[in-house]
Formats: sequence, C-alpha cells, structure tokens
Amino acid sequence: MSKSNLFFDVAASLDGFIAPEGMDLAHANDPEFKQWMSQWTKLQNWVFQQQFFRKNLKLSDGGATGSDNRMLEETFNRTGVSIMGKRMFELGERFWPEEAPFHTPVFVLTHQVRKPWERPGGTTFHFINDGIDSALGHARRAAGNRDIRIAGGANVIQQYLNAGLVDEFTIHYSPVFFGHGAQLFSGTNKEVQVKIKQAVASKEVTHITFGVEM
Amino acid sequence: MSKSNLFFDVAASLDGFIAPEGMDLAHANDPEFKQWMSQWTKLQNWVFQQQFFRKNLKLSDGGATGSDNRMLEETFNRTGVSIMGKRMFELGERFWPEEAPFHTPVFVLTHQVRKPWERPGGTTFHFINDGIDSALGHARRAAGNRDIRIAGGANVIQQYLNAGLVDEFTIHYSPVFFGHGAQLFSGTNKEVQVKIKQAVASKEVTHITFGVEM
Repeated sequence: MSKSNLFFDVAASLDGFIAPEGMDLAHANDPEFKQWMSQWTKLQNWVFQQQFFRKNLKLSDGGATGSDNRMLEETFNRTGVSIMGKRMFELGERFWPEEAPFHTPVFVLTHQVRKPWERPGGTTFHFINDGIDSALGHARRAAGNRDIRIAGGANVIQQYLNAGLVDEFTIHYSPVFFGHGAQLFSGTNKEVQVKIKQAVASKEVTHITFGVEM
Repeated sequence: MSKSNLFFDVAASLDGFIAPEGMDLAHANDPEFKQWMSQWTKLQNWVFQQQFFRKNLKLSDGGATGSDNRMLEETFNRTGVSIMGKRMFELGERFWPEEAPFHTPVFVLTHQVRKPWERPGGTTFHFINDGIDSALGHARRAAGNRDIRIAGGANVIQQYLNAGLVDEFTIHYSPVFFGHGAQLFSGTNKEVQVKIKQAVASKEVTHITFGVEM
C-alpha cells in the first residue's frame, strides 16, 4: 500500500467560495456573466504573479520568487497524481493549454465512459465511473512515493473529507468576497477534526495548512 | 467628529460560522441541543485559556500570556464602545455575569423600547430603535479617542460591512467545523474591497486582520 498522503490545496474567498458564480461550462464563453472571470482572477491574483506558476503554464519569464512561489513549487513537486470532479475537468478541457499543467496521471470522477486522454507533457486523464473509493485506489497505485491531490471541485473535496479520507489540506485565503459560488465547506460533517499545522502570511494571501485527525 | 475606527473581531469556524446552530434564546436552557454549547466552547477554546480573558470574567488566576493574550488585551483596550444586535444581547443577558465584560457603553439595536440598563463595572446598555446609522452616531459620541467594536451578531456585522462603514476587522479562525449556524459573511456585497493588514498564527488559532478600502 502506498504511503501517499491525500490532500487538497485551494484558494478561497473570505466568504468561503473556491469558484465564483457563473464559472461553469454554460458560461465559459461569457466571462462577463456575473463577472466570473474577473472574480476568479482576483481570487488567483497572487498565483499569477509567481515564477513557478508562470513557467509551468509557459506564460512568460520572470515572476515573484518568495515564499508564495516556494509554496506553489513544493505543492507541485509533492503531487504524484490528481483527482478531480467532472465539472472541473470539463471547464479545464476548455481552458488548459494543450500541455495541461498537471504532468502526472489525473483521475476524473464522471459517469462518462471514455478512454484515457493523453496530453503532451505527461498529463493523462483517466475517467473513473465508480466513485471516490475507486478513484482513490487507482490514485494510490499510480502515485508512487508522492502525494495525491484532490484538485477540486468543492463537491469532490467534500466527499473525501466527510468520508474521513483526507490527511491534510491547505487553504489560501484571498482578501475578496464572492457573495455566491461554489462553497468549499458547505455540508462538511462537524465530526471532522482538524488541527493547524502551519500558517504563513504574505501581503496578498494567508496560507493555512490543517491536518485532519482520524 | 470622532476619529474612532469601526471594527469587528470575531472567532469563526473553518466553514465560516461565528455561532453554532441552536445557540439562541430558545435553546439557552438546552446546551445538548445540537451540542451548541460544546461547539461554542470549541470555537472559543483558545480564548478561555488566556489570562486577560479569565481575569476580565473573574474566572480564576493564571492563564496563558503569549501573543493570543496580548491580542485580546489590545482589542479590549482599544474599544471605547460596543454595538450589538438584539439576539446577541438577549443571550448575553442570560449568560453574562452581573458585572458584564464590556466596561463601556454598549448600544443594542432592537425594536424594544427600554431605559438604559446599568451594570456594575461600567457597562451600560442603551437600546436603539432607529437603525445602524443612529447606533453608530451614538457610538461615535461616546467612544472618545477609542474605537467602536461591532460585537455581533453576524447580521449586524453584515449590515455595517455592506453599508461601507467598517474600517477593519479581525477573524480568529478556529480549526473546527460547524456545518450549520450563523454564517459570518453570507450576503456580503462583493463590492466590499479588503486588504490583509496582518496575519498571526498560534497553535490553536489563526488571526487575520483586514482593512476595508472605502
């Protein structure tokens, strides 16, 4: 059995949303709808400034190289596999560059039956039709000594958290309010016990890492 | 015109609640209902350990004297006046000791017409029947050079925040999930612009202070 940790690592608005209202396939062509694109950009503003992120998405040279950047790079390096929900995948399929930014196997929870989809740069999407335990089993076999990241969305994170399967998680609190959207913790079981492992603040974002007590 | 800042300072669960479900007048005698009392205690666990808090409530000598304690003491000392909602007051009327822990004027937003209620130790509750602007006007006149704290609950905080009247706020994120309860930021206007002023982490809680940009 692999010793990989299962974790998630998300940016959240102060009112607890990880995606704004309107950030979905129906409005992918309509960034003005509820200003979803500009809301999303505010949430991720700190990320777009970091050298590691810019390099990974081939945006441009340069970028910040402080503790925010180190954190992104460490999270990328520890990740051997990602798991994501169908809606996140569908939106990503539209927006990721051809060389998708994962560079590892990615297991997509979906009812759609589909052959693995291989992208240049080492990302292969596998489509899992039989639930979170099955996806986690596949992920453990593929992760090697690295960790397994639940990439999102909120609903998939919720399912793993409430099932007691998550080992730890990091929230990057961005100083922005969404009002509506996909809430990170709506419906979290209050029996889930967590402890603060680390909190780090930069000018633009506060990172808090929690360990889940089993 | 007074130069007092208007602020709030609350402990929040990770899923964004500042009070658990069942923490209301109807269940004041029933701490087992939804385990509201034990949920509340988990949220405030770090507070009960601090020397300043214990002294102020005359609980016992001793207590922690680190940065969490200093933060509580500074918040108390800067506060010349508090403003609170009717439901918070009603519950406090039941649970505060005779010497209520404010030691300043407190303006209560309510429809109830009632004469000022003076408590030993310097706390006097004044009952305001004509809305948040009126309460703030009274508070400014009473605050002197000190600041004005919106004590709660969530609904009153929300009203002041959306009206653009709040200068800054501090959230103490406790590592606990409530699932249901009074949500701090439900209905916050997404036009409210904030910046991180300070983030401080201790073992039990992460304190983040935000400035509101007008």
